[in-house]
Amino acid sequence: MAYSPGLEGVVVKESEICLIDVENSKIYYRGYDLEELAEKSTFEEAAYLLIYGRLPKASELAEFKRLLASMRRPPDHVISIMRSAPRSAEPIDVLRTAVSAMALGEDLSDRSREAELRRGLAVMAAMPYVAANWDRIRRGLDVVDPPADGQAEYFLKVLRGGEPTPLQIRAMDVMMVVYAEHSMNNSSFTAVSVASTLSDMYAALTAALASLKGPLHGGANVDAARMIEEIGSPERVERWVDSALASGRRIPGFGHRIYKRGPDPRLKVLRRLAEALAKESGDSRPYEVARRLEEYVHSKLSGKGIFANTDLYASVIFKYLGLPTDLNLPAFAMSRVAGWIAHVLEYRARNRLIRPTEKYVGPVGLRYIPLAERR
Amino acid sequence: MAYSPGLEGVVVKESEICLIDVENSKIYYRGYDLEELAEKSTFEEAAYLLIYGRLPKASELAEFKRLLASMRRPPDHVISIMRSAPRSAEPIDVLRTAVSAMALGEDLSDRSREAELRRGLAVMAAMPYVAANWDRIRRGLDVVDPPADGQAEYFLKVLRGGEPTPLQIRAMDVMMVVYAEHSMNNSSFTAVSVASTLSDMYAALTAALASLKGPLHGGANVDAARMIEEIGSPERVERWVDSALASGRRIPGFGHRIYKRGPDPRLKVLRRLAEALAKESGDSRPYEVARRLEEYVHSKLSGKGIFANTDLYASVIFKYLGLPTDLNLPAFAMSRVAGWIAHVLEYRARNRLIRPTEKYVGPVGLRYIPLAERR
Repeated sequence: MAYSPGLEGVVVKESEICLIDVENSKIYYRGYDLEELAEKSTFEEAAYLLIYGRLPKASELAEFKRLLASMRRPPDHVISIMRSAPRSAEPIDVLRTAVSAMALGEDLSDRSREAELRRGLAVMAAMPYVAANWDRIRRGLDVVDPPADGQAEYFLKVLRGGEPTPLQIRAMDVMMVVYAEHSMNNSSFTAVSVASTLSDMYAALTAALASLKGPLHGGANVDAARMIEEIGSPERVERWVDSALASGRRIPGFGHRIYKRGPDPRLKVLRRLAEALAKESGDSRPYEVARRLEEYVHSKLSGKGIFANTDLYASVIFKYLGLPTDLNLPAFAMSRVAGWIAHVLEYRARNRLIRPTEKYVGPVGLRYIPLAERR
Repeated sequence: MAYSPGLEGVVVKESEICLIDVENSKIYYRGYDLEELAEKSTFEEAAYLLIYGRLPKASELAEFKRLLASMRRPPDHVISIMRSAPRSAEPIDVLRTAVSAMALGEDLSDRSREAELRRGLAVMAAMPYVAANWDRIRRGLDVVDPPADGQAEYFLKVLRGGEPTPLQIRAMDVMMVVYAEHSMNNSSFTAVSVASTLSDMYAALTAALASLKGPLHGGANVDAARMIEEIGSPERVERWVDSALASGRRIPGFGHRIYKRGPDPRLKVLRRLAEALAKESGDSRPYEVARRLEEYVHSKLSGKGIFANTDLYASVIFKYLGLPTDLNLPAFAMSRVAGWIAHVLEYRARNRLIRPTEKYVGPVGLRYIPLAERR
């Protein structure tokens, strides 16, 4: 029997969704270079590509966007549930609970591809509503549901109440393109594992949200954001890093199980975006902190295969976009849901129950001693 | 790279929790024969054994039961959420949403073993409250929280309102012992996978509930219950089976990826229990249907490695205990949660992020055609 800690190197399925080409520092969605998609496409276009397997025609994209817009507001009971949540609740936990609740009251007996896809799109559509309106609810504001051209614009409008700038909308959109998919990460795998029991799409996506939260997965983003805030200004970077290294602490925003030969290919795109936002905002410090961190940590650790990952600049970008730190995770989730849906549908087409095994190393044949006689 | 469809035979971890000895048709919890535990112990004792690794002394068991009893009623916002759910909601989905909601408002930053264990026990304690009171809420009744000696008695009291017989309480308790753990099944694996990201216990158990629902996992139990009802009386068994086999349908309650050489060792215990309940109730038909199914299907399919599994008699037992069919899954969950907690804590002690890989078989380097030019 094969034993591979963390299942590293164990192939779970064949896939046509995403290729991470570590040698050449490239990521492809369905064969298209992610850097080009980040530059030229939108989240809706990338999500369509990931889920349907090809780029949409103009009419198909328009129809897809119309469909998402029509499903943004979740059923009333989901909104009641959001209102019942204690205000101190973590937004990612509220989002997971809301997605779980989307299953309630719907007849889920049809598990066909079409029915499951529709459920997936309903979740994708509703996530920005839930994430941004939860932030409003906890601030004592009313929920809102403004018209918007796409998911990115909608999210910023609900969250901040005003009109975001074109650069801000574009930055959010690019973030969502870049975060939409990343091969067999833990949350996508968890979604596939749950879906392999023929449980429904809501269940699979709820489980993926449970996974994404973990500090070794999506939660790392939040740690990076806290670090950028803690450091505050670029001249304090070196001392902060030296002290972290001396005390053996992990440095958030650096290191990845896959990218050990060079930086994550998404880094370049995000760095440029963070720089543009820094200029527009007039406050370049968060960007400069990340830039200096990247240089200094690479000078220290690149020989050990540790490079900046996407969390470093993503956290800076989310800061410029006005997200409270704890909304980074829901923002990540409302992007990655595209990949989750694509993986679930792909796996289901040739489904096989995921049921690994374990090696038993405990005792056997112990004698049961009645309760009263135990010492 | 290893490729094993469904991860069959892939070892995820070493474990001291449960041994399934297929050759000798035995299951051991922490080294103790499950048949003996089912005969002599209670759910609380078995859960303690699974989670803490050894049988409790009398004083420890009393303390453990007191702790569970004190945490049965979940926080108020969870009860509000249950009240917000549409009455047509599937109970397993309400339970998953409620468990997800238990995370809301709690400071989850402490991920120590003690903190996670306490969260796990809070979920275990609350599950019978949520499952049985949800059935009351959807019937238009008030929630109740009666005193009870253990989880099994509490569940039956809340669900049915009256006083269950000693045999009924014992049957429910044995069901819970028998369902408490079963090695690396999909839901336990899903819990471990989520926990490996260092996400919290509520998240891990929510994901496990998402998995358990699947018809290829816990959901099979519900299919078996529906079959028993549909067949109705023992003389109709042969025709029903012949017709199912002729049309190529799977027969619920039969077949298992592990038990291909003989029946599941839990079967004997459950068969006896179903027989006793049949006598007490005065209606032997559900039991006789299962008995006849077992004989007839074995005569047809045992040569192909298909034997009765636990779902066959579990569904009959739950029927005698007065569970609406769709409460079988929550009843399974409130037992299996003991195994989920044990697996999460065991894996966390030597945690490694679960991140398998996939084999990319799609295209690379496709040329991005601008939207307006696509045909």
